[in-house]
Amino acid sequence: MGRRPGRPAKRVGKKPASPSRTPARSTSSGVRRPSGPKGLGGDQVEGRQAVRELLLAGRRKVREILVAPGSDDELDGPLADLAELAGDLRVPVKVVSRARLDAAARTEAPQGVVAFAAPLPEADLDDLVRPGPDGTPPFLVAVDGVTDPGNLGALLRSAECAGVTGFVLPRHRAVHVTATVTKAAAGAVEHVPIALVGGLPATLERLKQAGLWIVGLDGAGDTPLHALPVAADPVVLVLGAEGSGLSRLVRQRCDVVAAIPLRGRLSSLNVAAAGAIATYEVARARR
Amino acid sequence: MGRRPGRPAKRVGKKPASPSRTPARSTSSGVRRPSGPKGLGGDQVEGRQAVRELLLAGRRKVREILVAPGSDDELDGPLADLAELAGDLRVPVKVVSRARLDAAARTEAPQGVVAFAAPLPEADLDDLVRPGPDGTPPFLVAVDGVTDPGNLGALLRSAECAGVTGFVLPRHRAVHVTATVTKAAAGAVEHVPIALVGGLPATLERLKQAGLWIVGLDGAGDTPLHALPVAADPVVLVLGAEGSGLSRLVRQRCDVVAAIPLRGRLSSLNVAAAGAIATYEVARARR
Repeated sequence: MGRRPGRPAKRVGKKPASPSRTPARSTSSGVRRPSGPKGLGGDQVEGRQAVRELLLAGRRKVREILVAPGSDDELDGPLADLAELAGDLRVPVKVVSRARLDAAARTEAPQGVVAFAAPLPEADLDDLVRPGPDGTPPFLVAVDGVTDPGNLGALLRSAECAGVTGFVLPRHRAVHVTATVTKAAAGAVEHVPIALVGGLPATLERLKQAGLWIVGLDGAGDTPLHALPVAADPVVLVLGAEGSGLSRLVRQRCDVVAAIPLRGRLSSLNVAAAGAIATYEVARARR
Repeated sequence: MGRRPGRPAKRVGKKPASPSRTPARSTSSGVRRPSGPKGLGGDQVEGRQAVRELLLAGRRKVREILVAPGSDDELDGPLADLAELAGDLRVPVKVVSRARLDAAARTEAPQGVVAFAAPLPEADLDDLVRPGPDGTPPFLVAVDGVTDPGNLGALLRSAECAGVTGFVLPRHRAVHVTATVTKAAAGAVEHVPIALVGGLPATLERLKQAGLWIVGLDGAGDTPLHALPVAADPVVLVLGAEGSGLSRLVRQRCDVVAAIPLRGRLSSLNVAAAGAIATYEVARARR
């Protein structure tokens, strides 16, 4: 399948194009959106890999990092390296007791480190549909109602590794970027631009108008994943919720609904596993 | 790559072949192994999918199931169905308070159901290297030091869905089948035979003698996963630990060490995601 006929990759919506990747929390008109529970979140980051990527990426201000020594009252090697990296970047580091760290943590296993940062910048959908600086066609992932934060974080991590260029998260039908998401994402939230959208069906229509193929992934799909004909084109892969799969309105917007073949007795894959397999299948076709 | 030259698929080791799939906890000499912490585990099963598969598979005795009603004092539909299924199978069902269920549970979110069952039967490595009843060549997964129970469960679930015919778990270098593993595996432990082995390097030698290709998976591998030449042959895929990857002694036994290409900025995939991608890549080549 070649480029979608009669649907050249063009701007989404009617707003004037912003000159470059829109910075955090500003709309195209330059008005700052108020932060709050409706934003993307991501202001608390836990786990060593996630905090390391937060520091290295340097995309957002880090207010403070708490680290806790182990039972021998010493920071272990990787944690000491992390504290040193933060120091080099002039991020305040506070060494606290394990009890104090656990009280501040929102995940079960923060691995001795919690960072407080500016919330994640929201990406603009208009930016996500443009080819990358090297001409890479857009490769987006949208989630339709994924509610488990561990799954969302895992999806983000695999997507980043597969070369996904943007992530689309419905404002009301998905978990936002909690501390559990940042930890499971292991730093992917620092690198993959994430757009928060109102309704996913309307967003998919806009993406279709912008020249993207809409590929749903669902156990009941009629195209085996490995036979996907659209992988090298601009594409958005839509993943359904744990258990219920794609909603009817979303399924209606899909050009193709692909299924991952099940060869055992179980009736479904975990959504994070399905997402990893599917993003890598698209990536394989794009190389 | 064709069949490993000069290494016909033959029995592992020197014991006489057992006539059929060896039953739970008996060795080839017929001596029952004592149950205890050294066994495979799996005697506590939590989560709706996992308990449903436990009941439907009927591979092991289920002693009792606890179910807890929601806040309206009613069992919800899926939980009532589960209780009815258990009743049909003459498994005792006890309706308990949410507090009592949570006290009995070993996972954070048992989804209102905990089952107590006979421990999982250990598979015999000799059986795992034989072709399946329909002539399917063995497709095994071995884990080298995976310690996170959620990851092990997720690996088992994806492996089952990909058609993996057996799983190899080192007795000392991996987590056993805890309640968290059974829940994340969503019933896969009822269908995929699991062998507990002493040392993984020696086991890989035995598998090699039995005609299997040993394929390691590691970020530092020199063969891209999609170029794997051995997928349709008898194969064992060896997955390294979170963080550290394959141990040196295991790597030395591998015929090929494959890597999943990383196209973003992160330096690694989660081991469960890597396992899902790799088992499906092998499955794709075997169809």
